[in-house]
Amino acid sequence: MDNTKYLKTVVIDKLIENEATEIEDVTIDESRLNLYLNGEKTISMMTIPKDQDAHAIGFLMSENVISSIDDIEDIKISEEGLRVDVKAKINEESLQNLYKEKTLTSGCGGGVTGTEATELVIPFNQTAFKIKPQTISDEIRIFYRESELYNLTGCVHKAMIYLLDGTTVTAEDIGRHNAIDKAIGKCKLQKLDTIKSVLFVSGRLSSEMVTKAVMHRIPIIVSRTAPTYLGVQTAHKHGITLIGFARGKKMNLYTHQGRIDV
Amino acid sequence: MDNTKYLKTVVIDKLIENEATEIEDVTIDESRLNLYLNGEKTISMMTIPKDQDAHAIGFLMSENVISSIDDIEDIKISEEGLRVDVKAKINEESLQNLYKEKTLTSGCGGGVTGTEATELVIPFNQTAFKIKPQTISDEIRIFYRESELYNLTGCVHKAMIYLLDGTTVTAEDIGRHNAIDKAIGKCKLQKLDTIKSVLFVSGRLSSEMVTKAVMHRIPIIVSRTAPTYLGVQTAHKHGITLIGFARGKKMNLYTHQGRIDV
Repeated sequence: MDNTKYLKTVVIDKLIENEATEIEDVTIDESRLNLYLNGEKTISMMTIPKDQDAHAIGFLMSENVISSIDDIEDIKISEEGLRVDVKAKINEESLQNLYKEKTLTSGCGGGVTGTEATELVIPFNQTAFKIKPQTISDEIRIFYRESELYNLTGCVHKAMIYLLDGTTVTAEDIGRHNAIDKAIGKCKLQKLDTIKSVLFVSGRLSSEMVTKAVMHRIPIIVSRTAPTYLGVQTAHKHGITLIGFARGKKMNLYTHQGRIDV
Repeated sequence: MDNTKYLKTVVIDKLIENEATEIEDVTIDESRLNLYLNGEKTISMMTIPKDQDAHAIGFLMSENVISSIDDIEDIKISEEGLRVDVKAKINEESLQNLYKEKTLTSGCGGGVTGTEATELVIPFNQTAFKIKPQTISDEIRIFYRESELYNLTGCVHKAMIYLLDGTTVTAEDIGRHNAIDKAIGKCKLQKLDTIKSVLFVSGRLSSEMVTKAVMHRIPIIVSRTAPTYLGVQTAHKHGITLIGFARGKKMNLYTHQGRIDV
């Protein structure tokens, strides 16, 4: 895939000690994406204008505004890529929650959410899915090795969904929530089953990250970094296996360790 | 200052190879803080319940809902610390923008914003303020060395405002926007002049981070990590000196290098 179009080159001064040298630096594009739902402007997000349809679908389904991929009639991305139009059967109440609740999230690139794990309409579905620690170690290594935009700009987050058959679906964005919504949206668009899958995220596991896993019934969530206490509580309550500090052969198992096949 | 009350201990399994050992791990508290403005619930934010008054003031002034600290009649933090009540003279239009615009930001812990640097009511005020690279190198070292909650949990962001007299004002939060709003709020509450100051942030410099500097007329913003292209454009347009990848004796000067005293 060609990622160069999401990159912008800037000429800068690189300062070492008191020596300034003019060099070219690559930065990531950041744009305002406007989401229209049944003709009405619903929200706009600061994002990398890539996988806009998956982003819109993942976000709307994370917020339970859309319950099923089958409720979507049409998705259009405007030519310049900064507007997505979704025609779908929506849950008016969830949409109103999104507006009313106005919770500022702590996660990179999510922002506002109307969803709380404590008031989920979709209860988390326990599964017999198990995974070997070795698989997690292998996948997290690949996860970081193949984060092209991150490696080029040092300015993106990544999410990856590891499916039962060993295939993966990945997405990158300047925002941590966005990356997860994009990866989930890609699975939904391809009608992939995520009930037996693992969500790998590059960011910290605050409660909203875990809530997305709950919303989409992803039983295991893995990060190289730390969870918050509310993140751990949310995972515990909803039966999610939360793994933090997954680095090399090491990882911390916070909740529902039973899914880790040692 | 006692930070232990923002920490929660959880018992976890530390997995190395296939060996699981039960250990205690420290996680950061994450709570929903409800902000009431003149008796009405305005917004809620996922945050570390610390410096709630500074957080509220910094946020409201970042969004231009409150123009001056003198417009604030009263601030109350509820006993359990999860509600802040602000009585103040507000800009109704900015408050409506905050609700209407509903832009999901890309920054850790900001979330929603109604402010765009392109439509600022406060134009950025150029100053003759200059700073030596050595000072930036020294301060960024101290900035990370003294990030207690980060060192304990690996799960917080930090912001620091370096003032003309060499003193600093710092704040930490799970959210990158929150940390900046808290640090700025602390300055406002102490009526400290930030027109000749430097804002150090632990996170990436996306456009909203730079916009906060513009809103509060902070001429220099420094991060150890990368800016986005829109962050660079915003800094360029509004006369802000943007410094990224500030590590040891090295740093990248993206815009308005004139303020760096080499």
